[in-house]
Amino acid sequence: MSALQNVLDRIDHDLEPATGRLFDLLRIESISTDPAYRKHCADAAAWLVKDLKSIGFSAKSVKTPGHPMVVAKHHKTKGAPTVLFYGHYDVQPVDPLNLWENPPFEPKIVTGKGGMKQIAGRGTADDKGQLMTFVEACRAWKAETGNLPVNVTILFEGEEESGSPSLIPFLREYKNELKADIALVCDTGMWDAKTPSITTALRGLIGEEVTIHAASRDLHSGMYGSAARNPIHVLADLLASLHDGNGKVTLPGFYDGVPEIPASVKKQWAGLNFSEKAFLGEVGLKIPAGEKGRSVLEMIWSRPTCEINGIYGGYTGEGFKTVIPAEASAKVSFRLVGDQNPKKIVAAFRKYVKDNIPADCKASFVSEGASGAIQLDYQMPELQKASAALKAEWGRPAVLAAMGGSIPVVGHFQKILKMQSLLVGFGLDDDRIHSPNEKYNLSSFHKGARSWARIMEVLA
Amino acid sequence: MSALQNVLDRIDHDLEPATGRLFDLLRIESISTDPAYRKHCADAAAWLVKDLKSIGFSAKSVKTPGHPMVVAKHHKTKGAPTVLFYGHYDVQPVDPLNLWENPPFEPKIVTGKGGMKQIAGRGTADDKGQLMTFVEACRAWKAETGNLPVNVTILFEGEEESGSPSLIPFLREYKNELKADIALVCDTGMWDAKTPSITTALRGLIGEEVTIHAASRDLHSGMYGSAARNPIHVLADLLASLHDGNGKVTLPGFYDGVPEIPASVKKQWAGLNFSEKAFLGEVGLKIPAGEKGRSVLEMIWSRPTCEINGIYGGYTGEGFKTVIPAEASAKVSFRLVGDQNPKKIVAAFRKYVKDNIPADCKASFVSEGASGAIQLDYQMPELQKASAALKAEWGRPAVLAAMGGSIPVVGHFQKILKMQSLLVGFGLDDDRIHSPNEKYNLSSFHKGARSWARIMEVLA
Repeated sequence: MSALQNVLDRIDHDLEPATGRLFDLLRIESISTDPAYRKHCADAAAWLVKDLKSIGFSAKSVKTPGHPMVVAKHHKTKGAPTVLFYGHYDVQPVDPLNLWENPPFEPKIVTGKGGMKQIAGRGTADDKGQLMTFVEACRAWKAETGNLPVNVTILFEGEEESGSPSLIPFLREYKNELKADIALVCDTGMWDAKTPSITTALRGLIGEEVTIHAASRDLHSGMYGSAARNPIHVLADLLASLHDGNGKVTLPGFYDGVPEIPASVKKQWAGLNFSEKAFLGEVGLKIPAGEKGRSVLEMIWSRPTCEINGIYGGYTGEGFKTVIPAEASAKVSFRLVGDQNPKKIVAAFRKYVKDNIPADCKASFVSEGASGAIQLDYQMPELQKASAALKAEWGRPAVLAAMGGSIPVVGHFQKILKMQSLLVGFGLDDDRIHSPNEKYNLSSFHKGARSWARIMEVLA
Repeated sequence: MSALQNVLDRIDHDLEPATGRLFDLLRIESISTDPAYRKHCADAAAWLVKDLKSIGFSAKSVKTPGHPMVVAKHHKTKGAPTVLFYGHYDVQPVDPLNLWENPPFEPKIVTGKGGMKQIAGRGTADDKGQLMTFVEACRAWKAETGNLPVNVTILFEGEEESGSPSLIPFLREYKNELKADIALVCDTGMWDAKTPSITTALRGLIGEEVTIHAASRDLHSGMYGSAARNPIHVLADLLASLHDGNGKVTLPGFYDGVPEIPASVKKQWAGLNFSEKAFLGEVGLKIPAGEKGRSVLEMIWSRPTCEINGIYGGYTGEGFKTVIPAEASAKVSFRLVGDQNPKKIVAAFRKYVKDNIPADCKASFVSEGASGAIQLDYQMPELQKASAALKAEWGRPAVLAAMGGSIPVVGHFQKILKMQSLLVGFGLDDDRIHSPNEKYNLSSFHKGARSWARIMEVLA
């Protein structure tokens, strides 16, 4: 029997203890956006260091101004290439808590649609379950052969869900230590539960929190109503005017640098077994909300967007309060494609807001990050090799897909470490990442580990 | 010396213990909108019953499905008319708590603008301070003469700030017990700190909470952005479209029944010492926000309005979450004038929302009450008498003012008890009712009690 086959057999045999290890990691409430969970983030980093050491990595938790970075190395394979595996151990907040069927930090195996076994809990798909597929693949290789087929550096960050403020300085400082032949990034998805995928394009992301300030204090609407400016009205007017009647974003210059997708790619996408009706129907919707004349795949893979991710102002508790608030806020994000310039778009947004509010109102802004879009090289040999390995595992060719989300680290790896990334992950559209009842299919976890075991071998 | 003069002297002499009694009532956290404060509301009612009994009233706290009603009687003056004095002991919520300079339920005397002594705390002006002006007037009359000049019934409700759900059934059930020659309602204001006022017109109020439902669960904006409908966008579009470019409300039929103010009244208002610049400037604003071509006094006294009092949806915590929420909500209120029909406007609003959302979204509504506008009779003899009494106390004639706020109880008294109301209160525009740092001028409390002592005498 080949070494690979022994490794795959071991992954099969060890699925239960591997799931147990993942559960231990999932129980740590490592919410990075909320300062109250700072200690939990450090705990998750420490857990990973300990686990990686147990496999034979040299591993450490490195302090940053925010949450620590986990850096681990196993460089014992002479002549083999070096890969940098990236993942993140932090998770999204869990509100609204009352919508969770199981407590978010008490992972458990549940049975989903069609009898599929699923691991339920916050971070199962984004990203703890995903990163552990790679760790388990390493564990199996070590157990069966005493070594890894390639030299492996691991970087786990703890601030991915909060804009990665420490990442760029860290990459700059540890540039030499982290440099590798290629990065492996696991924060992506499959085409469907049975078809693997490699992501080759990523949208960029801008996050802006805007607050409109009107009166110097909250006012009684009976006394001041209609005479005093209501910042919620101002905000609603502004947000409504960000799209025109055809679903296009109205910011001046917004579409500069947006490429039209080549006809050949459009044709390939049209040939995929993608049903708009099923995609929207699965979440209770029917009518595509984006630009008129574009398919849903174009909307989510190739077009820039503007979304309001949060809004608040005035009285939001139970009952009623006839208040005209002093201020109102919205969290606005833009997904970018092609050569759209994030800095120019942030400037255009802020100018647009300032130019379109009444003269006695003020606007303030908090930046939550701004990163451009990424297009990866279709011709990389590693991409071809990984495709073959995924096909061997899943019995189907990997779909080379664009992705609507953004993974800024890929851009940082390009710019700072001068390194391409290979984006392979096993998440699914219905994993409910960032939502209540997040899950990760047990098959994604199991066959994900087997996939990495194979990819490591073909990259050797 | 006349009995009245003795009574007024006693009020002067007893100002300190009277303030202490008010502080005791203010310390009770009787927030009616929040079920967590149910016990506190009952405590406030019990405190009032005890205090009224100590003056010689027969008093009781009557249970309702919501918070109790305080009903008290002192009917010992043969041949004199009976007055029903109305006030409310519940208060508004206190958020945002961090903006209070003193804790809201730890009342204290502070020094305000121009060295004016002020009582600071939640409920000082709305309405505990106001209702105690009447109670203190009664106490002084009893202490000096052993009786009251008129027969007095008192009704204190505990649900005014939460839409008074129990009031109408209660008035119907206790109709005979509460019937009087006239109602005295104290939940109103003065023209300025030195000029008394009697309110003769009140706007109506509709409160509607609207929720837009889109996807069946929260979605990740990277995966679904622009393809899936964002309910915050839908809500922003709707709210923005409720006003046109001239500040008029766009709901079909909204202005049916809105009277044009007679030229004579417009002229009287134009002659008042009202500065739009000062009125808006005091709260940090400059530009009137209402209908173009109307003065600020017209906007707040005679025109109907539509205001958004609260909005929330998506992620509203610290940091960012790239979510497309399943739903978004707004609290919308309408102030009504003249013969605008509250039921028709609620129906028009709900139809407008339903007609203007995408076919795969739904809207749900919670009613927070709907009451029409009130115009009182300028010719009532009680109004003339009270005017004279107020002039005697303050040295200036009382301004007969319209009021932007709404006091639905006045309409209920008209319809159910077939009784007119006389609206006299001592609040000021800068009292910050419903806001942090609510206050009531000590002079309003002191001279308010003196004013009621005088009004009771002239009504006898």
